[in-house]
Amino acid sequence: MAAQRVEAPDPEAFVEAAKAAFRDGAVLSVQARCEVEYEGRTNGYLDEGDRLLVAKPDGTFLVHQPTGHKPVNWMPGGGTVEARESEGDAVLLARRTNPSERVETRLHEVYGVTRFDAEDGATYEESGTEAEMHEYIEANPEELEAGLRIVEHERETKYGFVDFYAVDDDGTPVVVEVKRIQATLNHFDQLKRYVELYAESNDEVRGMLVAPSASERVKRALRDNDLDFVELAEFGLDAKGATEAKLTDF
Amino acid sequence: MAAQRVEAPDPEAFVEAAKAAFRDGAVLSVQARCEVEYEGRTNGYLDEGDRLLVAKPDGTFLVHQPTGHKPVNWMPGGGTVEARESEGDAVLLARRTNPSERVETRLHEVYGVTRFDAEDGATYEESGTEAEMHEYIEANPEELEAGLRIVEHERETKYGFVDFYAVDDDGTPVVVEVKRIQATLNHFDQLKRYVELYAESNDEVRGMLVAPSASERVKRALRDNDLDFVELAEFGLDAKGATEAKLTDF
Repeated sequence: MAAQRVEAPDPEAFVEAAKAAFRDGAVLSVQARCEVEYEGRTNGYLDEGDRLLVAKPDGTFLVHQPTGHKPVNWMPGGGTVEARESEGDAVLLARRTNPSERVETRLHEVYGVTRFDAEDGATYEESGTEAEMHEYIEANPEELEAGLRIVEHERETKYGFVDFYAVDDDGTPVVVEVKRIQATLNHFDQLKRYVELYAESNDEVRGMLVAPSASERVKRALRDNDLDFVELAEFGLDAKGATEAKLTDF
Repeated sequence: MAAQRVEAPDPEAFVEAAKAAFRDGAVLSVQARCEVEYEGRTNGYLDEGDRLLVAKPDGTFLVHQPTGHKPVNWMPGGGTVEARESEGDAVLLARRTNPSERVETRLHEVYGVTRFDAEDGATYEESGTEAEMHEYIEANPEELEAGLRIVEHERETKYGFVDFYAVDDDGTPVVVEVKRIQATLNHFDQLKRYVELYAESNDEVRGMLVAPSASERVKRALRDNDLDFVELAEFGLDAKGATEAKLTDF
């Protein structure tokens, strides 16, 4: 199992679980009632309360209160996190040098601890906005299908905006959804929802998903639902240079 | 129980657990293999991998990879997080308006999900640095104890720096540890460690913890171990104005 849980460990069992996780390079997450001290550029203290604690194998340590996206206390990777017992409590100590700082968390009650032997080789890929792709399609609808004509850009529906409302060579309406990244099942869902909405008043409506690429699974889901996929490979993330050259040609 | 765990839920069980947690205002943490899409100012895609997902009742949503202190994707509080099933997977959708953005996470395998009914009324309290307090003590050692004389400021030991190495009226060495925040059991531990170190070569060594305040539990721990506590209330967090006036008097 990638994730292993110990419910309500006593301090000794907690320290044992934490040490094992740190040794093995697992991600630790802990639900606990704790108090926190910070010593570094300034000094700080957070009195007892329930928090989610996260320790990562690179030395990252996060203390999350029940609200807010920022951790109330944290240490970046590069330092160390240690677990030990003290005066009947479990303690997590995260520290680094240069600058010298430490976050010490005393766990008065541990509700549970999860070790997560996580494997993740992926890197976040960011691209430009869909707006660029919309401009291109509006100027070149024949790139999607011969004879396709754009009727409306960003038509509002009760489920949100449809990117393009178009008609094909036979006069059949086509709902076109455009994605700037590799098409996913979420995009398929979205297109299907729009098409079903239009199908309430027009049986003949078609749906078309436009994206730089799609997995076989997504292509199959589209096919099985009589929806079209159009690949605009020149907008792919790894073809960014080419795309940008093309866009500046307008 | 403040924390409740479901191990390896199928998509239906996951969505049910997530919906219940959102309804009840609990903090949700999830270990899962997932892929993530971001749509907003830009577009982004994170291919499949193992991640820790956190959803808070204020709409905060965090996607944490196994390293790094920053979430790879996130949404601040103020929006919504929803759980639903799609094409055989569980999906978490975090979104907000103004600016309009969304993080959609498709969970291909959920290793486990924990709901945390967290209660936390505490606020992080930050104070100035200990350096200010050190200056004051160095100039006014008699404030700690009549006849006390500072021998050395920040003496290095194999366990770190002792704040002050002093001698009392009888010539007995005193290890002084200074804290800028309310004294905690962690501070007691630290002082005890230093004193035990010095006791290896000098039986008579005393230990003194100096802080703006301390709980009864900390005072008792100190007393039980023949360590002294000196309260310098004028450095208390709620006496900040007075402290600052005092410090500028130097």
